[in-house]
Amino acid sequence: MNPLSATPRTALGRLPERSSADRAVLYEILDAALICHLGVVIDGSPRVIPTGYGRLDDTLYLHGSSGAASLRHGPSRDVCVTVTHLDGIVVARSLFHHSINYRSAIVYGTPSVLTGDEKLTGLRAITEQLAPGQWDTARRPTRKELAATTVLALPLAEASVKIRRGPPGDDAEDLALDAWAGVVPVRQTFAAPIPDPTLRPGIEAPPHITSRTRS
Amino acid sequence: MNPLSATPRTALGRLPERSSADRAVLYEILDAALICHLGVVIDGSPRVIPTGYGRLDDTLYLHGSSGAASLRHGPSRDVCVTVTHLDGIVVARSLFHHSINYRSAIVYGTPSVLTGDEKLTGLRAITEQLAPGQWDTARRPTRKELAATTVLALPLAEASVKIRRGPPGDDAEDLALDAWAGVVPVRQTFAAPIPDPTLRPGIEAPPHITSRTRS
Repeated sequence: MNPLSATPRTALGRLPERSSADRAVLYEILDAALICHLGVVIDGSPRVIPTGYGRLDDTLYLHGSSGAASLRHGPSRDVCVTVTHLDGIVVARSLFHHSINYRSAIVYGTPSVLTGDEKLTGLRAITEQLAPGQWDTARRPTRKELAATTVLALPLAEASVKIRRGPPGDDAEDLALDAWAGVVPVRQTFAAPIPDPTLRPGIEAPPHITSRTRS
Repeated sequence: MNPLSATPRTALGRLPERSSADRAVLYEILDAALICHLGVVIDGSPRVIPTGYGRLDDTLYLHGSSGAASLRHGPSRDVCVTVTHLDGIVVARSLFHHSINYRSAIVYGTPSVLTGDEKLTGLRAITEQLAPGQWDTARRPTRKELAATTVLALPLAEASVKIRRGPPGDDAEDLALDAWAGVVPVRQTFAAPIPDPTLRPGIEAPPHITSRTRS
């Protein structure tokens, strides 16, 4: 796999030791999250919205209602997609060295609007990111539903990865202080599935749903 | 409390039933999260970065290294701060109605750079958001550390709240399908604190740290 090459936007001015040029790490971060934060510029102002996404090879897929302002302004214009895993609260002896442990990926680019089979490929990737196994279980979209949905493809051509892990980085002279220091790990977990109140009796949650809670 | 009044940026074109104009709901969403996603425009392109923040009354506080590009471009320019809680994966009988349950707040505005006592007030709010109880426990910042940190204040004047909760919204004609439908709840949890390897023997994690894991 090609390494991630730095551009003026992705080159990290600060704390370059926290960056990774490894494309496999980028994939790991993208594949493990459920939502991203999509940044667009509308009338000169930034707008950041949480939304679902998917990845297949070197393409990131986004979707939304065909009427959504964020997507109307997105195609053929620059967007920024950020995916963040919050892994821990870094508690230091000094307030200055308090921090967070995290893994984040930032992707820049100009998305294109997909049609036909490519649109279905994108929708499948987005569905399987959020709810693996559902593409082959739930009812596929009708022509009308497809028309109501815009699917965008963003090449993973300009991206950066930033990771902080491990204990706090207190100054040597602070190690003698009486204050506790360490990390409080933060986890994202799944609780037991809640059936839809209108679910017909006798329909159990399938293994691809129940297995998430155990993971 | 004043309700949140709509502006062209905060008025929700789509799914207005998911919005809330209740300022107390805005506070709840902001106070319950650990990080936000900060959007800025740099050379015409959007940039979205995960970062810590804090809130006190109607002010949102942000901070970062005085050298960070996102903050150099932030003051006296528009920013967008988005806070998102992912609450569940909404599994529908149709792919079209798959969704996420979430609570999100989006704040727009032009931040100002704080100095003196206001800067300390902002730092305290940011610290207490991430690690409540640490402001009175850890070593306070030195003059040099303060100089290395930029603290911004963003008024909670232009903000919107969007919430989705509850079961999937399948079409009536799909209720007869055999597919399972419901919600997989998503939770953010804390694991047992991991002491810093250089922690001096005999220093136990204080209650304000250990209590998080139990919550």
